Amino acid sequence: MNANVKIDDLEVGYDIPARLGMDEAEIQTPSLVLDLDALERNIRKMGDYAKAHGMRHRVHGKMHKSVDVAQMQVDLGGACGVCCQKVSEAEVFARGGIRDVLVSNQVRDPAKIDRLARLPKLGARTLCCVDDLANVAELSAAATRHGTQIECLVEIDCGAGRCGVTSTPAVVEIARAVEAADSLKFAGIQAYQGAMQHLDSYADRKAAIDIAVAQVKDAVDTLAAGGIACDIVGGGGTGSYYFESTSGVYNELQCGSYAFMDADYGRILDEHGQRIDQGEWENALFILTSVMSHTKADKAIVDAGLKAQSVDSGLPVIFGRADVEYVKCSDEHGVVADPGGVLAVNDKLKLVPGHCDPTCNTHDWYVGVRNGRVETLWPVSARGKAY
Amino acid sequence: MNANVKIDDLEVGYDIPARLGMDEAEIQTPSLVLDLDALERNIRKMGDYAKAHGMRHRVHGKMHKSVDVAQMQVDLGGACGVCCQKVSEAEVFARGGIRDVLVSNQVRDPAKIDRLARLPKLGARTLCCVDDLANVAELSAAATRHGTQIECLVEIDCGAGRCGVTSTPAVVEIARAVEAADSLKFAGIQAYQGAMQHLDSYADRKAAIDIAVAQVKDAVDTLAAGGIACDIVGGGGTGSYYFESTSGVYNELQCGSYAFMDADYGRILDEHGQRIDQGEWENALFILTSVMSHTKADKAIVDAGLKAQSVDSGLPVIFGRADVEYVKCSDEHGVVADPGGVLAVNDKLKLVPGHCDPTCNTHDWYVGVRNGRVETLWPVSARGKAY
Repeated sequence: MNANVKIDDLEVGYDIPARLGMDEAEIQTPSLVLDLDALERNIRKMGDYAKAHGMRHRVHGKMHKSVDVAQMQVDLGGACGVCCQKVSEAEVFARGGIRDVLVSNQVRDPAKIDRLARLPKLGARTLCCVDDLANVAELSAAATRHGTQIECLVEIDCGAGRCGVTSTPAVVEIARAVEAADSLKFAGIQAYQGAMQHLDSYADRKAAIDIAVAQVKDAVDTLAAGGIACDIVGGGGTGSYYFESTSGVYNELQCGSYAFMDADYGRILDEHGQRIDQGEWENALFILTSVMSHTKADKAIVDAGLKAQSVDSGLPVIFGRADVEYVKCSDEHGVVADPGGVLAVNDKLKLVPGHCDPTCNTHDWYVGVRNGRVETLWPVSARGKAY
Repeated sequence: MNANVKIDDLEVGYDIPARLGMDEAEIQTPSLVLDLDALERNIRKMGDYAKAHGMRHRVHGKMHKSVDVAQMQVDLGGACGVCCQKVSEAEVFARGGIRDVLVSNQVRDPAKIDRLARLPKLGARTLCCVDDLANVAELSAAATRHGTQIECLVEIDCGAGRCGVTSTPAVVEIARAVEAADSLKFAGIQAYQGAMQHLDSYADRKAAIDIAVAQVKDAVDTLAAGGIACDIVGGGGTGSYYFESTSGVYNELQCGSYAFMDADYGRILDEHGQRIDQGEWENALFILTSVMSHTKADKAIVDAGLKAQSVDSGLPVIFGRADVEYVKCSDEHGVVADPGGVLAVNDKLKLVPGHCDPTCNTHDWYVGVRNGRVETLWPVSARGKAY
């Protein structure tokens, strides 16, 4: 959105889904609605947890893609900054006033490296990950060219099976190269075990993290023995942060989904066998949808399909309703089983999306609601920033 | 995008994925790339087919969401106009200069009905579907209020299982109500058999369409016997247009995916048992992606994940490569099996998306390429227009 455009100039429906002060019932659908009370409670709770456990919390901005939510996480949750996955996302957060930004990912394309090296000029501490010696030289040359400094975390693949090195000698080799390179600073270790976050069983998640912690500890201890200290040992997600926080090895969390919750995360169980959306976290994000056709007695058609969500991790769940079920998703429609025929055209339903991150990426706006009124309208500022 | 922003003012990477005239190799990834030669051939081919069979072609704009592609379909393919699924999409096409716009869907929300009724003031013939008597009165009141006319198609559910009535008496009842209503005009029938489009077998698709055609014919004949003529009998998709074109009942096609193709449509078979992406249509749409990490010998990590595509209809297929395979998709990464270790960091791959419509909805730009150079940069003008 052009920075000079004022919300008051925008047209409800065409440009924006709601107007400030509007009754919740008038919000155009489908759109993303945030329960601001629930969001604030989630953010404060994780902030309090991190503080009580002596952990920094670098919130994951790629989940919400919103400068406003990130700022709330700094203000209410004591977050030290954000992490995100793309240079273009980092630019949005830095331009939006977030002062400490980690691209928790590899940056290899020459044009992207050049943009990353310019990021400190926006006033943001700039960090990224490395998993390859060649990249150290590329990053160093770019930062030197721009007279800036990039801090580097060596990424360990501790089970996610994506980027990152897998052996301690490889970590040490890259860390030494970073230390020796002009315009770079070795900042520590990135080690996110992504694959285990969605295992339902608490014990299974713990078993996976125990392996990751041992792997990271070996690298950190070996670096320390060689005189290299890790300012940051970062990782942890909504399904694991208590393990990293009590590991004695990690010092920085990178949780994202806890703030909004989604149906796929909601299903995982805490140590007492309770779903994490039934006590640990609240659903704060919903896709508001309307019934648009009901020509069959037992089936309602709603206006939220694939253009309003991602179903990669399963269909959405209708919030607070056991009598109706979202059973099918096509491009522009959802089919809702309505065996009792209780729904009518223009009835609204709140969907908990299957997966919050890519769902938020299909929308331009968050509509923040409190006490039945639209209180905020926040752009999904880094939506589509995939470069 | 603000209409006053010039492409020359935009920053490659942050705002746009490429600059006009740029070498194809320099396009920022992940981004949507159009092979303009293939796109033009697809569009001309379908246009020629429709003309040869005496059919109008109302191209489906919800596939590409692009005014520029729609205009090309009018100019090169003789399209009579567009259909789309949302009022906000219709507004984009009407504002962009498309003069004949059908919302091939139900419009029930009062605010949306009001916007629909204002659409003719933008100079576009405006049509929508109805499947409920109550909606006739709502549409009539809005059009009367704005001094405009809305043309209505009665929607028949001929197998898609979404909106639409299922009996001829219901069609006749609604058609008569439209005819009697102020400021509305009965324009005909909407009957899209969406569920059959992706059946692999030609014979299975034909069997499904035969049922649909019989159902639509009964309604059209009954209306005619009652003195009600259908200007439009519309439907048909990329997996069925030859059936509707030779049905003797339909007179307007609504194909979308043929222009871009995708992996899911590509797998269906023509009457000779050949995949439709191996002769009938060409892949014109690709997600360009780069290798960003290759720390494991047999696995490359690429930068196109769920933020650059929808995987609802399966994973993307790597175009023109039998030696590597896209095997896993997470938010920001794709995992590519590279058993021969042939890929290197910054190598680029062209992905054929599993499903073009929701994939295009995650991007802001199409990069049009011809002879290895960036020739056009088109906004995905109706991206995110889900209201």
